[in-house]
Amino acid sequence: MFGTKDHLRAEGGHLTIDGVDVVDLAEEFGTPLYVTSEARLRANARAYREAFPEALIYFAVKANGNLALLRILAEEGLGADVFSAGELSLVRMAGIPGEKVLFNGNSKRTEELKMALEAGVRISADSLDELLALAEVAKEMGEEAEVAFRVNPDVSAKTHPKIATGLKTSKFGIPWQDLVEVYERAMGLEGVKPVGLHCHIGSQILDTAPFVEAAARMMELAGRIVEVGGKIEMMDFGGGLGIPYTPETAAPTPSQLASGIKPVFEEGCRRLGISPRMILEPGRSIVADSTIFLTRVNVVKRAHVNFVGVDAGFNLLARPMLYDAYHHVVVANKADGRAEERYTVVGPICESGDVLAKDRNLPRIERGDLIAMLDAGAYGFSMASVYNGQPRCPEVLVGGGRAELIRRGEDQSVLLSGQVVPARLLK
Amino acid sequence: MFGTKDHLRAEGGHLTIDGVDVVDLAEEFGTPLYVTSEARLRANARAYREAFPEALIYFAVKANGNLALLRILAEEGLGADVFSAGELSLVRMAGIPGEKVLFNGNSKRTEELKMALEAGVRISADSLDELLALAEVAKEMGEEAEVAFRVNPDVSAKTHPKIATGLKTSKFGIPWQDLVEVYERAMGLEGVKPVGLHCHIGSQILDTAPFVEAAARMMELAGRIVEVGGKIEMMDFGGGLGIPYTPETAAPTPSQLASGIKPVFEEGCRRLGISPRMILEPGRSIVADSTIFLTRVNVVKRAHVNFVGVDAGFNLLARPMLYDAYHHVVVANKADGRAEERYTVVGPICESGDVLAKDRNLPRIERGDLIAMLDAGAYGFSMASVYNGQPRCPEVLVGGGRAELIRRGEDQSVLLSGQVVPARLLK
Repeated sequence: MFGTKDHLRAEGGHLTIDGVDVVDLAEEFGTPLYVTSEARLRANARAYREAFPEALIYFAVKANGNLALLRILAEEGLGADVFSAGELSLVRMAGIPGEKVLFNGNSKRTEELKMALEAGVRISADSLDELLALAEVAKEMGEEAEVAFRVNPDVSAKTHPKIATGLKTSKFGIPWQDLVEVYERAMGLEGVKPVGLHCHIGSQILDTAPFVEAAARMMELAGRIVEVGGKIEMMDFGGGLGIPYTPETAAPTPSQLASGIKPVFEEGCRRLGISPRMILEPGRSIVADSTIFLTRVNVVKRAHVNFVGVDAGFNLLARPMLYDAYHHVVVANKADGRAEERYTVVGPICESGDVLAKDRNLPRIERGDLIAMLDAGAYGFSMASVYNGQPRCPEVLVGGGRAELIRRGEDQSVLLSGQVVPARLLK
Repeated sequence: MFGTKDHLRAEGGHLTIDGVDVVDLAEEFGTPLYVTSEARLRANARAYREAFPEALIYFAVKANGNLALLRILAEEGLGADVFSAGELSLVRMAGIPGEKVLFNGNSKRTEELKMALEAGVRISADSLDELLALAEVAKEMGEEAEVAFRVNPDVSAKTHPKIATGLKTSKFGIPWQDLVEVYERAMGLEGVKPVGLHCHIGSQILDTAPFVEAAARMMELAGRIVEVGGKIEMMDFGGGLGIPYTPETAAPTPSQLASGIKPVFEEGCRRLGISPRMILEPGRSIVADSTIFLTRVNVVKRAHVNFVGVDAGFNLLARPMLYDAYHHVVVANKADGRAEERYTVVGPICESGDVLAKDRNLPRIERGDLIAMLDAGAYGFSMASVYNGQPRCPEVLVGGGRAELIRRGEDQSVLLSGQVVPARLLK
């Protein structure tokens, strides 16, 4: 019923996750609620480790910054791709060692460069301007920064334009044509040590071909760098592997990705006589399908269509609004019910765009029913806001047959957080 | 130079807000930073009060939930349109009395209905299902809920589809064809007292015609309700007046809006022999142009185009990414500089969609320059997230020639807030 998601089942009319009834979870922890299967998360991490035994797998923390999940991924041997000082602090607290972290990003503050150097993590330089700033910071600190270079390979990945990051028009990376010049510049620069190349062509990519194309371009660039006397200790091919959000979609597995890019990498290394470490940066394909998002039905309205109003919208799950993304919907308390009516599931937010799921055939829905949105672990909670005065919800981890709170829900006090009213306005 | 925004000036090469140098503000409070002109905010509120002296002006709190700003608007005599229990708690703390609040929203939790009743505020019912739930809650509490009905007038407002809320396809309101039936139902229902009608056709509307069209439909519906013996104590025509984000745009003033809808309202009331209170719910047109958003340049990259990487992106100002919205850009430390180059201003977030401003002709930009985005007071901070591990920034109020902190910036600790790591994962 749930495809390859063997952590999900319909039992006695209720949806279960690793054997735990989600209707009970909603009762115990309230709604909205994020619920993660530890077993599935570990299985996803292991699939990468097995497909790429010699590579370093850096989890893309932007997909999910929950400490308990990061801790589990650290136990599974994963490193981290971080995009800010904040994400760096999270992964260090989760016990991921600095040598297994790459500090990415197209626009880093000076304090972030300093923090990265202090934490001893490698930095991916996104531009010549940043390289020069980094060299200056490192010299001031008496450090030498190990730097990889984010390449813009101008490779087209068929995905939503907002998350296609490898096109020449995107804001990311150094145009591949300029790369060797920048690398050579770095080789002569005090304070920095160039160690390799990095690319990331986009997100939710369902075809291995663009990864292979990017890898080939990267190995070609590595060759030119070797020609000018540069060293290549790491080759980071980024993340971006998609997952099958709809029941009809097929997505490549990590081992299929490996079949595509490993030969290109290995053949290139042999040809060039280099032995860099391969790095990958998966996010979504590690965490998305481990997690479901539960919301409670507040209202059913028969209008232009049948609207189901639930207790969370794009404040807590922004992907449908942002990318017209599909999340599969299950009525969790009627999980083996026959589809009887067509519904559009909407949140409580003040915009017409606040639609979680359009035109879904579902069992008959009433106030109080429980809606589960599947595959919500990536870019779910991590994009949450308190827009419309909606506090953020709790997160729960299911492991070993029981559920544990891994993030407390906020209450209304969070809206007051940090606010200061000048005394002259209090009279 | 700044159109009608007389709170902004270029003085000695720096942008000033009510005479305060924003370059100094960025030094003192850091970047990113939201800065609001108290004078402009008050002037905007007064423009509504003067254009509609007999009406109640309910500020749409979703646009900006800062307590100091709400307090100022309370001083100016405004009420509030709230969309959640959280927003209700904010406006009550800001000193807006319960009788000047309308609780809106298409999907309210039972606890929210209870809280609204406890606070003694009127509720806008979005559907028959909600009306029935509200009646039940009110009866249980021994209360009588004063209810207005959100009408979907099926009026087309030329604006971004995500924020056009008055079309029949939108999730909001009771189809106008069903309204009288629902109203009559309410009239016979214990626990609720129907008091009038409410509509809101969308946001950032630059033409008064759709407001007039909606008002005409509302008065027509009021007539039908009077015919069936219903009482109409309030007529809420919603908000949605746009502002001129681009220098070339013209937007109607509150007094132009008044010239459009007041005759329709007054003539309708005379004809029907009723004297309801008119209510309006402006948000953007009260607060947007009072506030600028300051970001610091981290990097300038010459690539496919000239990218300026600044220290905030859609984590703090989501409108450009969400709605392709335009915010005028001023290089605040080169405010009277001649445009020399074309730039695209991008944030530090991991998505290609994280573009704040495209193809702007600006003075030559270097690392360290200060970028001001104008008209950032509405749907700016209120939509902020900590996506990519970016803590939210401070807010400052400029009034009487000085600047005061009205919201402290967050630090990285906010990313840990509420997180719990189960002990078994700490070994």
